[in-house]
Amino acid sequence: MPDYRKFFSDDVPSFMRSPVREIFRKVDLSAIYSFAGGYPSAETFPLDRMQDLAGAVARKYGAKALQYGATQGVPELREAVAARCGVPVGNVQITTSSQQGIDVCARVFLNPGDVVLTTSPTYLGAIQSFRSYRAEIVSGELPEGKKAKFFYVIPDFCNPSGETMSLAEREALVERARREDFLIVEDSPYRELRYSGEPLPTIYSLAPERTLHLGSFSKIFAPGLRLGWMLGPEELLEQIYVCKQALDLCPPVFDQYVAAEFLSSGELDRNLASTVALYRRKRDLMLSLLEKYMPEGVSWTHPDGGLFLFVTLPEGVDTVAMYDEALSAGVAYVAGSFFFTDGSHRNTMRLNFSFMDEGRMEPGIELLSRIISSAIWKKSH
Amino acid sequence: MPDYRKFFSDDVPSFMRSPVREIFRKVDLSAIYSFAGGYPSAETFPLDRMQDLAGAVARKYGAKALQYGATQGVPELREAVAARCGVPVGNVQITTSSQQGIDVCARVFLNPGDVVLTTSPTYLGAIQSFRSYRAEIVSGELPEGKKAKFFYVIPDFCNPSGETMSLAEREALVERARREDFLIVEDSPYRELRYSGEPLPTIYSLAPERTLHLGSFSKIFAPGLRLGWMLGPEELLEQIYVCKQALDLCPPVFDQYVAAEFLSSGELDRNLASTVALYRRKRDLMLSLLEKYMPEGVSWTHPDGGLFLFVTLPEGVDTVAMYDEALSAGVAYVAGSFFFTDGSHRNTMRLNFSFMDEGRMEPGIELLSRIISSAIWKKSH
Repeated sequence: MPDYRKFFSDDVPSFMRSPVREIFRKVDLSAIYSFAGGYPSAETFPLDRMQDLAGAVARKYGAKALQYGATQGVPELREAVAARCGVPVGNVQITTSSQQGIDVCARVFLNPGDVVLTTSPTYLGAIQSFRSYRAEIVSGELPEGKKAKFFYVIPDFCNPSGETMSLAEREALVERARREDFLIVEDSPYRELRYSGEPLPTIYSLAPERTLHLGSFSKIFAPGLRLGWMLGPEELLEQIYVCKQALDLCPPVFDQYVAAEFLSSGELDRNLASTVALYRRKRDLMLSLLEKYMPEGVSWTHPDGGLFLFVTLPEGVDTVAMYDEALSAGVAYVAGSFFFTDGSHRNTMRLNFSFMDEGRMEPGIELLSRIISSAIWKKSH
Repeated sequence: MPDYRKFFSDDVPSFMRSPVREIFRKVDLSAIYSFAGGYPSAETFPLDRMQDLAGAVARKYGAKALQYGATQGVPELREAVAARCGVPVGNVQITTSSQQGIDVCARVFLNPGDVVLTTSPTYLGAIQSFRSYRAEIVSGELPEGKKAKFFYVIPDFCNPSGETMSLAEREALVERARREDFLIVEDSPYRELRYSGEPLPTIYSLAPERTLHLGSFSKIFAPGLRLGWMLGPEELLEQIYVCKQALDLCPPVFDQYVAAEFLSSGELDRNLASTVALYRRKRDLMLSLLEKYMPEGVSWTHPDGGLFLFVTLPEGVDTVAMYDEALSAGVAYVAGSFFFTDGSHRNTMRLNFSFMDEGRMEPGIELLSRIISSAIWKKSH
């Protein structure tokens, strides 16, 4: 048996396991109260439409729906996305998931030691990707003498915080990007899941010359298709296109036609409207349950959209340490410190409110609150 | 408008455009005689089964078919592939195309300057991937003082040569890999497309401790699903699994269930049998047409399977230079020199025999032969 370690590239020691995916590997989520994943609700999937959609695609597009396709994505889906986003089709690249959109940005822009700016906390899958290229991930001011390649940001209903950047914050970011001359990677998988408040302009619309905007079908159709899109300047997309040729030649073709059908027929918008209504109820339910059950000293964000809210426990309560106990008791969350690149904020947790059935939300939050209360009590005794 | 070049990573200048994909970007293939692509025949796609397959998947697997799935692939498809390949399920990773399988090997194993061994000529998409990590691609003996990370090889019906390694050659490669201590990446998308001769053992079966074997659904089901698999030692797959988390979280889930249904119901094998019969006829037809029309001094390989054969013209005839003329006349091929890392062998070309309708093969080969004859005549006058 060879010692495999000598074959690994210098990047490999920087590869991180997703703590979220590791939970899913070990635990049957349906057997517990899981607030852990970023899973859409199964109720929102047009499962009973898949047979007809597949049939329609086969009849309408014929063999090309099962053949290799263009690296940029099939024209029909690029055009549907371009129309929806109000941009020319030349500014649209279809991605094999918006996670691939993040990763291809990392691959095209980052050398080891390069700086990526981001908010803190931020999306774990982005941290994973940037770390795997040995980038330095910085929130706040740049280290002396360093320049940033790009700022990675989820302006709408951030994963994990649930927070939304104000227009002034967006403008300030754009102004800083222009002044300090870095790009912006705007990760926007939740933008259309707004339950209250008014939509704000995308960062892409404020700075189209230096923003790559990542969209996703995962939350407005189904994650099982692994389809997203990227908007950006043609010159940058051209380089991303060349990179993507070597990654997987093209995004899944049949699924792209299914998405094009679902989108251009208007079904996607009807399905999205009921998804938003469902998630609004779930968000409101979770907020009222936290109000009802959480002990004193616990606070949480009040998101206007998305899938998550972020809970802060009293200083000194450690959500990483109490995780196994919670899981044994039958409730799962993601420790908030995983979303901070320095592993700080061990008194925080991310809760997902989209996945769990409404009927199970109350016993789940009650159980979680009991475990938190007990951890607070232990800390002070 | 920013100057974007300063944002690019040091890898970007090594990114190559696929000349094959660039042709497809510019030319409507259906309007010409195209022997260029590596496309399966549309006749082999179970297009009329997609609606029922999608319905069966929706009924049998429910919402999990549209949800996020395991990074390793959904258990049902991993198990079906494991059973088909005769390996434990722990040795199976599902990939989002076998191109991704190649790329993830490059990502996990290669530092800039590392050596990849390969045959010459070899698959262009692999050259693209290895170059993009700034690896040194070597065919033949290692440069003095260097060690190789892995040998990349297509032992069955190589793209582009159509040639198959003998058992003695496979054993010699394994023996060399053990002696010089490198891994083997066995790319095997065509293995099940055998039209004559007897199957030989996979390299994976000869050296399971140091081989990563890449399989593909593209040629035995449909490329539009973008699904492949990787077999290998669990310790290596574990590292590839961690890498893949950051690439795209998981392979397309609905498509995986469609493939699992198609495979485990026995449909895939029935479809494959008729595909093999069709491609055997097409291979034989192309060989007889080359015999009939090609001028003296032109030779070609006689593949036992796969999608390609490789043509050698007289020394000094340049298939890159004559390409535009051929395209204008209405026939496309891929210049053979693209498959040589040093750009040599400009008197060769790759011809695909799977894609074109049987009825169009004769006028296409006749036209190509005329262009070749004219190029030979020009060279000698």
